Amino acid sequence: MVKATIITIGDEILIGQIVDTNSVYIAKLLNKAGITVEEKISIGDNAEQIEQTLKRAHLKSQIVIITGGLGPTKDDITKYTLARIFNSDMRMDEAVGRHVKQMLEVRGIVYNELNQSQAMVPTKCEVLFNYHGTAPGMWFEGEERHITISLPGVPFEMEHLMEDEVMPRLMAHFALRANIHCTMITAGLPESMLAERIAPWEDALPPYIKLAYLPAPNVVRLRLSAYNVEDEEGVRAEIEALFGELNNIIPQHIVGFEEATMQALVHDILTSRKKSLSTAESCTGGAIASRFTAMAGASAYFQGGVVAYANEVKVNALGVESSDIERYGAVSETVARQMAEGVRRLTGSDYAIATTGIAGPTGGSDEKPVGTVWMAIATPEGTKATLRHCGTDRGQIINRATAYAIEMLYHHLKETNK
Amino acid sequence: MVKATIITIGDEILIGQIVDTNSVYIAKLLNKAGITVEEKISIGDNAEQIEQTLKRAHLKSQIVIITGGLGPTKDDITKYTLARIFNSDMRMDEAVGRHVKQMLEVRGIVYNELNQSQAMVPTKCEVLFNYHGTAPGMWFEGEERHITISLPGVPFEMEHLMEDEVMPRLMAHFALRANIHCTMITAGLPESMLAERIAPWEDALPPYIKLAYLPAPNVVRLRLSAYNVEDEEGVRAEIEALFGELNNIIPQHIVGFEEATMQALVHDILTSRKKSLSTAESCTGGAIASRFTAMAGASAYFQGGVVAYANEVKVNALGVESSDIERYGAVSETVARQMAEGVRRLTGSDYAIATTGIAGPTGGSDEKPVGTVWMAIATPEGTKATLRHCGTDRGQIINRATAYAIEMLYHHLKETNK
Repeated sequence: MVKATIITIGDEILIGQIVDTNSVYIAKLLNKAGITVEEKISIGDNAEQIEQTLKRAHLKSQIVIITGGLGPTKDDITKYTLARIFNSDMRMDEAVGRHVKQMLEVRGIVYNELNQSQAMVPTKCEVLFNYHGTAPGMWFEGEERHITISLPGVPFEMEHLMEDEVMPRLMAHFALRANIHCTMITAGLPESMLAERIAPWEDALPPYIKLAYLPAPNVVRLRLSAYNVEDEEGVRAEIEALFGELNNIIPQHIVGFEEATMQALVHDILTSRKKSLSTAESCTGGAIASRFTAMAGASAYFQGGVVAYANEVKVNALGVESSDIERYGAVSETVARQMAEGVRRLTGSDYAIATTGIAGPTGGSDEKPVGTVWMAIATPEGTKATLRHCGTDRGQIINRATAYAIEMLYHHLKETNK
Repeated sequence: MVKATIITIGDEILIGQIVDTNSVYIAKLLNKAGITVEEKISIGDNAEQIEQTLKRAHLKSQIVIITGGLGPTKDDITKYTLARIFNSDMRMDEAVGRHVKQMLEVRGIVYNELNQSQAMVPTKCEVLFNYHGTAPGMWFEGEERHITISLPGVPFEMEHLMEDEVMPRLMAHFALRANIHCTMITAGLPESMLAERIAPWEDALPPYIKLAYLPAPNVVRLRLSAYNVEDEEGVRAEIEALFGELNNIIPQHIVGFEEATMQALVHDILTSRKKSLSTAESCTGGAIASRFTAMAGASAYFQGGVVAYANEVKVNALGVESSDIERYGAVSETVARQMAEGVRRLTGSDYAIATTGIAGPTGGSDEKPVGTVWMAIATPEGTKATLRHCGTDRGQIINRATAYAIEMLYHHLKETNK
């Protein structure tokens, strides 16, 4: 089995100043190619720690990928540390130098000493040309054909280098077998009840297929994984058959596969049925609209929406009755229904989703505490509303209300397919 | 210096199925309390690897915090692995058992064997009671007063346990000194030019204060850090004075401090000036509205917005001239201006932000490639529009267009303060 370790470098990771998404991207690509990630490690901009970690990682991994610490400023030390580890001199790379100069000129930046240093590379590395940035990637081959790869920490630059340079080279360098990960998404059964229901199925899994439970609010994902597979096609068929068995055991709880989110499921249904959608959001403040519009192809069904934060916008843009707001409050079933119907009318869409709630931290009362959210869907089959309590923290409330409201439409779409 | 290692457990992390935000949260809290995070490690659900990693981590760290692997299903092995490492038997914790049963009853879940196992804990640990979930946290004291803490992987549960249980105990257990991190946000100077401008200042920094550059699109953050500080007040004053010096060197480039984002800066200005805001979004699809509404207190100034994805919504809800859409295209200066003015009129807000662009992957042309975004602000001082190229990837385009549009309003608000 070919194994890799991912090392992300930067004090900002250790003090919790940034969320590391680079290693997620790298792990996905490596797994897809059949390379198993043994460990992910984050360390500071510290030469001794970089050296120790790299050496230790290579005891178990043939491949080590390092991101970060390649900037032009003094706090970035990865390049010179690698040069020392590999007993390498530095040289000026003419092509990189020209590229850096040109990139900076386009952006109106003066080419100074610091930028010039970006073109210095260890003699013992192969340069991975970074068309999208000024810090080149580096490929070192060590003892026993072990590979060390250094990439810039800017996500966009790292991603291009991984796809265009690193992956093709790794696939040429190693004889790789497949890693297979297939995920089924279930809803409506909590983890423990799901596990009980499928226990006989789980116990009968072959030893080379591993099951994992990934619980999230309202949803549990079941992942089947097989590593270092010789007969990829055969094992894929086997996993498909195993999921097919679950289809007999928990048919009403299977909602999708792989990374499908609720919004992706709704996206697929609306696209295939050629139906349209709009949104009217108060407490979710645009989060529902932005989840749909984040997906390529949303313009096929998403008409638009209104973020009706102030009551006047609920009245003027959506036609909510101001007397009802006074009588029942902005966070009420009546207002949620009128918002959904109002935006459906305004945009002429087939379906509409609306939310109105108290995201906090202030604005709660005994009767309607922070986290209270009314949500409604307006559909050709009529309007439905429901009340959900979405937690106590503002971010959590917005996220849950967004998820629940989309789920509400999803269930309606499934039901009306009969 | 008291050091900690954070270990996150779960195959889903190593295959890139989830983004690890737990360790970010933990790192922030530890740093704030003066505990330095030495390393963050992610490993799989593998008993041998958990044991090796834990032992190695304790060679350098007095504290090891482990998250994940505490679910009721078979793939979760952290608890039993820790029991073996600490040579501990298991016992049934009555209080945890009652709590688990009660939690499940409220949610209508059957209390089965798997759930009961949640109440089993190693005899040698102290239970950290998890009021928000079914898996208890665990606190082990090992040799040399070393501490090992195991927490559930569900972010919300982990966060409560960290704040309510773990931090007070750590502060009682160790004599802690302060770690200080202060961040200044600059805009308008690329990293290399900024570094050149402040080089004499950087060279004169005292050895115990460390500078880091954190570049992001259009913004470079400068962080000054001091670890294990005895005289916290003195060093804080010193860092403040150092930032004061920068105020003389790059006065026009300093836009804020700490985690302030562009939207937070606009939030603060609008709140203090008692002015209101609305948004009209096409390609950003609600992302601008949701960045503002994610912040507590947004209702003080945010009136609402229109996500005008379909052209009919631009016309019907915002009053954009359909003849102008036909003549200039939906992605045009005229339409961006009319969208901003339209939503400002509709909501009666003081300021409005509008975007219209091509987020891709389809819809581009030679004249208007994917990534082309027109953005406009409508203000009491008039309407301005600008064209920005926001990249090639859909997510990146939405993010950048969102950031640039908010920044456009920010600069206008700064200019009109004179």
